Amino acid sequence: MTTLEDCRALDGQDPLRALRELFTIPPELIYLDGNSLGVMPKAAPERVARAVTEEWGVGLIRSWNSAGWYEMPQRLGDKVAGLIGARAGEVVVTDTTSINLYKVLSAALKVARRHSTGRSVVVSERSNFPTDLYIAQALCKEQGCELHLVEDEDVEAAMADDVAVLMLTQVNYRTGALHDMRAVTQAAHAAGVLVVWDLAHSAGAVPVDLHQADADFAIGCGYKYLNGGPGAPAFVWVHSRHRDEFEQPLAGWWSHAAPFEFTPDYRPAAGIARYLCGTQPVLSLVALECGLDTMLAAEPLGGMAALRRKSLALTDLFIRLVEERCAGHGLGLATPRDHGRRGSQVCLTRSEGAHAIVQALIARGVIGDFRAGDARQPDILRFGFTPLYIGFEDVWNAVEQLKQVLDSGEWQRPEFHQKQAVT
Amino acid sequence: MTTLEDCRALDGQDPLRALRELFTIPPELIYLDGNSLGVMPKAAPERVARAVTEEWGVGLIRSWNSAGWYEMPQRLGDKVAGLIGARAGEVVVTDTTSINLYKVLSAALKVARRHSTGRSVVVSERSNFPTDLYIAQALCKEQGCELHLVEDEDVEAAMADDVAVLMLTQVNYRTGALHDMRAVTQAAHAAGVLVVWDLAHSAGAVPVDLHQADADFAIGCGYKYLNGGPGAPAFVWVHSRHRDEFEQPLAGWWSHAAPFEFTPDYRPAAGIARYLCGTQPVLSLVALECGLDTMLAAEPLGGMAALRRKSLALTDLFIRLVEERCAGHGLGLATPRDHGRRGSQVCLTRSEGAHAIVQALIARGVIGDFRAGDARQPDILRFGFTPLYIGFEDVWNAVEQLKQVLDSGEWQRPEFHQKQAVT
Repeated sequence: MTTLEDCRALDGQDPLRALRELFTIPPELIYLDGNSLGVMPKAAPERVARAVTEEWGVGLIRSWNSAGWYEMPQRLGDKVAGLIGARAGEVVVTDTTSINLYKVLSAALKVARRHSTGRSVVVSERSNFPTDLYIAQALCKEQGCELHLVEDEDVEAAMADDVAVLMLTQVNYRTGALHDMRAVTQAAHAAGVLVVWDLAHSAGAVPVDLHQADADFAIGCGYKYLNGGPGAPAFVWVHSRHRDEFEQPLAGWWSHAAPFEFTPDYRPAAGIARYLCGTQPVLSLVALECGLDTMLAAEPLGGMAALRRKSLALTDLFIRLVEERCAGHGLGLATPRDHGRRGSQVCLTRSEGAHAIVQALIARGVIGDFRAGDARQPDILRFGFTPLYIGFEDVWNAVEQLKQVLDSGEWQRPEFHQKQAVT
Repeated sequence: MTTLEDCRALDGQDPLRALRELFTIPPELIYLDGNSLGVMPKAAPERVARAVTEEWGVGLIRSWNSAGWYEMPQRLGDKVAGLIGARAGEVVVTDTTSINLYKVLSAALKVARRHSTGRSVVVSERSNFPTDLYIAQALCKEQGCELHLVEDEDVEAAMADDVAVLMLTQVNYRTGALHDMRAVTQAAHAAGVLVVWDLAHSAGAVPVDLHQADADFAIGCGYKYLNGGPGAPAFVWVHSRHRDEFEQPLAGWWSHAAPFEFTPDYRPAAGIARYLCGTQPVLSLVALECGLDTMLAAEPLGGMAALRRKSLALTDLFIRLVEERCAGHGLGLATPRDHGRRGSQVCLTRSEGAHAIVQALIARGVIGDFRAGDARQPDILRFGFTPLYIGFEDVWNAVEQLKQVLDSGEWQRPEFHQKQAVT
């Protein structure tokens, strides 16, 4: 049996332990929701304050040049690029994940259908994050295409002759299941299908190598494992073989070759800048840059490979402790045990009370979240493990609280059954 | 002749003078660029700091509920609504102006073409802000429509049988010319044409009454006269007669009727929420709310009607002083003298050196901006007058500096002829 002392010893040996000091972690919390909103980098308050009081307050309009506001989508994009196997100049940070998906899915459909007019299907997973499905539905409707949803295990078999684009989230938001990006991309390409990857739960969480996988398009989120703050802007990458071939439909002035010439005719920028659209929320970008810098601080300590080793050790430990210490409480495991198939979260199932158990844990300072099931899939208790700042003792303590919530039955109290706007 | 003392006397009599104290205005500046980026409300640093350190840093994911993050698009939208003649619940603050234009123009085309399939033209002004034209071009291309650009004075004559939508910016960004929203809308409707209004240079600058004008769709900007900070999110309004009729194409999860049910099928929210898309940049929204609150602080002092009186007095004074004190320097006036046709800015023309004169003024602490001309229109020296915080003495001092720049010829120095990324 694993003990608390064992967990403390693991923290003592953790080569990444010092990175925790880059963050403000409320001392009363064990925060296992970094896959939903990452914690605050210690640098953020001062950096954001400077952007407000000096850059906005004093620099005013001049700061577009003097404070480098104008280059932020590219500068932050370069910092993201290193985390996802992209090259400098290939990524911009801008807009939201949903909007960036609309841009790249639109471009992907154009590329695919130019090469083969008979291809009019977008394939995705039924359990993909809903906003991806909604955006794809809307775009398919506009373009006379069809969205075909399949189960995880049926993705490769679905690569039929009429499929234009495969759109997948690399790490499933509900289960934490991880796709092999390279293998899936190869299988899709072999069938003449382009692949759009949503990296929302993988950028900063698992090693990603877009070029090695020969991916076509990718987008991702700034406020989860990249610790960019609430609603931080998202990012977009397009392989250079497709990048300059098509104009994305959200052809705002920031995607123009020369926006400050103010010409009435649209002329798209070369390179990834054509995937920009309008003026970006600078204060939110500034906070996101602090988050990206915490990821970069891991580089000298082994970078994503070291983070991945720790992430797997954390999720292994959580699974083991739940099975050792919470046995008999009806918990199941929705996350793959196979390291090659696991992201950086662990999802538990329970036929009853999952929402209330999560609420009772939150009341005890252990923050995970709940994801509702339906006829096809169970309710989920979801716990994210961000290796930058989560320790092994945190895992012990989280499981201890879970055990107490279950042993005591306190989750059955009415106060834990109230619905909230955001879950 | 108007004197400095006269201007000081006007400030002394200004019933809105106290509002200036709500802002941090760098003492060495005369800031006439609030039409590009409004100055910082004094409340912003503390409010943003609280959002960073308490709501993000401590509240973390819980703040979506406990700090009201989730309702911000609607709460801020209600604050905008009062400034543009919309009703509570009719406006959301979200995304960028360009993206919101894409949403409403798409919806407008669908409405128009359902009623009359022969209508496939979008009419706009050639000198509309380019991002509006680019978005319209892209959308027209996608939908097999045509964008027809006309001069300001030819707009009503262009309302032919094949026109689906008239898309106008109420106050022209280059000239400050103001459209009569009600008259133009009536003329368009009489011809069976829907109207999309861009309020980027009118919300907070001139009285707007969308319902009285019977407008169809409107969007606008948060970082100009609403003082929301760099790249602050934008807003969108749709008349209730069209609102629930169509799904906009950017159908992200925030526009879903029940986003936290995470269902794979899209079901649009009722009301203006269906014009949302993805997760919004909270820190930038928080700053924008501070800006909106400065507008609301004008309400007990007479609100938009009082702001409008002062705005016209400021721009009248600027025009008069330029003509009195800078005569003989080749300056022309691009802004209408007629109050009914003037926004809250004054644009001067000069056949030579406009860019360098603006740069020389900036070096002297008078911040306006330059907008390049082309074969059809002259270069512009642009000066915005935000009545919330600009005073009559500011106008005197700005013209005095302009006079000195012209009298001395210092604008001809090489340092004022360098190009910058953002102008």
